[in-house]
Amino acid sequence: MRAHNFGAGPCTLPVDVLEEAQAEFVDFAGSGMSLIELSHRSPEYDRVHRRTLELTRSVSGAPDDFSILFIQGGATLQFGMIPMNLLGAGEQAGYVVSGSWGKAAFADGRVVADGYAAWDGEPDGYRRMPRPDEVRQEDNTRYLHVTSNETIGGIRMTDYPVGARLVADMSSDYLSRPIEWDRFDLVYGGVQKNLAPSGMAVVFVRESGLGDPVHPLPKYLDYRWHIESDSLGNTPPMFPIYLMGKVLERVAAAGGLAAVEAEAAERARRVYAAIDGSNGFYTNPVAVPDRSHMNVVFTLPDADRERAFLDGAADRNMVGLKGHRSVGGCRASLYAALPMESVDALVDYMGEFRARF
Amino acid sequence: MRAHNFGAGPCTLPVDVLEEAQAEFVDFAGSGMSLIELSHRSPEYDRVHRRTLELTRSVSGAPDDFSILFIQGGATLQFGMIPMNLLGAGEQAGYVVSGSWGKAAFADGRVVADGYAAWDGEPDGYRRMPRPDEVRQEDNTRYLHVTSNETIGGIRMTDYPVGARLVADMSSDYLSRPIEWDRFDLVYGGVQKNLAPSGMAVVFVRESGLGDPVHPLPKYLDYRWHIESDSLGNTPPMFPIYLMGKVLERVAAAGGLAAVEAEAAERARRVYAAIDGSNGFYTNPVAVPDRSHMNVVFTLPDADRERAFLDGAADRNMVGLKGHRSVGGCRASLYAALPMESVDALVDYMGEFRARF
Repeated sequence: MRAHNFGAGPCTLPVDVLEEAQAEFVDFAGSGMSLIELSHRSPEYDRVHRRTLELTRSVSGAPDDFSILFIQGGATLQFGMIPMNLLGAGEQAGYVVSGSWGKAAFADGRVVADGYAAWDGEPDGYRRMPRPDEVRQEDNTRYLHVTSNETIGGIRMTDYPVGARLVADMSSDYLSRPIEWDRFDLVYGGVQKNLAPSGMAVVFVRESGLGDPVHPLPKYLDYRWHIESDSLGNTPPMFPIYLMGKVLERVAAAGGLAAVEAEAAERARRVYAAIDGSNGFYTNPVAVPDRSHMNVVFTLPDADRERAFLDGAADRNMVGLKGHRSVGGCRASLYAALPMESVDALVDYMGEFRARF
Repeated sequence: MRAHNFGAGPCTLPVDVLEEAQAEFVDFAGSGMSLIELSHRSPEYDRVHRRTLELTRSVSGAPDDFSILFIQGGATLQFGMIPMNLLGAGEQAGYVVSGSWGKAAFADGRVVADGYAAWDGEPDGYRRMPRPDEVRQEDNTRYLHVTSNETIGGIRMTDYPVGARLVADMSSDYLSRPIEWDRFDLVYGGVQKNLAPSGMAVVFVRESGLGDPVHPLPKYLDYRWHIESDSLGNTPPMFPIYLMGKVLERVAAAGGLAAVEAEAAERARRVYAAIDGSNGFYTNPVAVPDRSHMNVVFTLPDADRERAFLDGAADRNMVGLKGHRSVGGCRASLYAALPMESVDALVDYMGEFRARF
């Protein structure tokens, strides 16, 4: 029986994609080889690679002056690579520290180059995003770094800061809503939430946004090397690229990002309604306009009931509902491939469980 | 029908591993989820991760003072990471430039820190490895970088330089022969030849070999971060780690590296015998003691016959025999999972083809 997978990532993927990949796993397209056994220089793999690149561009709507890169190392490697590639001498980056991920990007960015906190939500417990007018900008700011969705705090940004060019970590709501491309010089994220198995980040970088690096960079850390090779400079993470292509085919067929966004909003609406209609039995600490559509965090009245809630969920085949170890509580991650029946199963269970007390 | 896959990497993997992974692809261990949908913090994935780590240690025989790291980005990212992590102020690395890969490591290493060519095989066409006494060492050499097997030139190192500590790129003959651990401070390689699908490198690093980095490093580029987190600092490349575990289980069951080495030697012996017994119809340019057991390069008398040879091979379901685009000719890669019947099919075909002329 298929689990209701509320994991924060890696997480649920479309079951028809998994079944299709399973069927062709040992013999890909009649080649007598698995996709993972193909040379990355073979025509068979090349078609897969180009198709995923094309789908990434068409589904995302990224303009032509953005290059699309498949780079291993997840968002974490990008925390260092972005300032290495974008900042020239005397330039710095401002970081919107909106949660654990914004903080991690800031910490790594400052190791590499000059950076400052343009806003810090930590004193407030990361329960909201800043208003644009709260984000301060220092001189020589090359870009502001934002996190579109904070997986742990369960907040998302809808009103982006104005002024400087933007760089956004979109890992945890990647391609779940349309992107206002004109605001960004770089958009990146790990693929292991809405898009593919773990093992790479997709980086959209505007060519005019590339700086004149202060230090020369070894090849793998240099966006230009990935751009020039179409992400084939060395052996790419072929299996995630292949599966991402299958996921994006389905997104395109189902109506693109607007449809993904509408479905995500409906999933989130149902869970927040269960919280808000619980007379305070379940609580979500986030400012309503900033509530994430991907990660719904909530707490119960006490630790005993929380434990009982999680145990009962496990009995009902619902997994991944425990909150992040740094904050506790519960978290339901509602990524793009989560079936609505999983959402309804959770909502029904939340109602039943509450009725017991 | 299963292809005879002589690709240089990615390449053939054990078909029983592929079939086992296929069977459990949609529902891993009764979890109701694919392995790739599991949280990397889940007990199910944790068991997989630890098991692969243990097998990597037991099969490789790496002593306890080596940490074993799973890092994305392939060997190419390591070209930069190694000097970043190992070289202190005033120290440098010597590079044995024994082929395209040694040259690539040298080029990237020099971007990051001081390095020099300790030996350069390019004037000789990369047809042999240096004798130990040909490798020169400058003052303040922290380590010598060697490539155990050059995939493109088809040569391998058996007699390692003496003096300085060694760092070895073993990508293309990784875990195909025992490693003299006391000679090395660091051993690394991409896994996409003998071990797993593309998407990561395995790095063995001796703790006493870690330097005092000149520049602070962002997390993903810092070995200490990977060491402290058991390669779970961010979401690891779960699917390659899982498959590598299955491959290594089979290696262990079949007798470990000594058995892999003996089989590899026998595969190579058969193909070199076909070349050497062809009265010069097939030629291999490599000094005999340095002939690779993984990548057998050979040429035919002229381009027409070479094309006909490759076409006929394709008709017989043999793929991946075209030489690297930088050198031309033919190349048969004989990685650990290549069945002996594929070797014999090639040898038979080489005989038949030659008999036609």
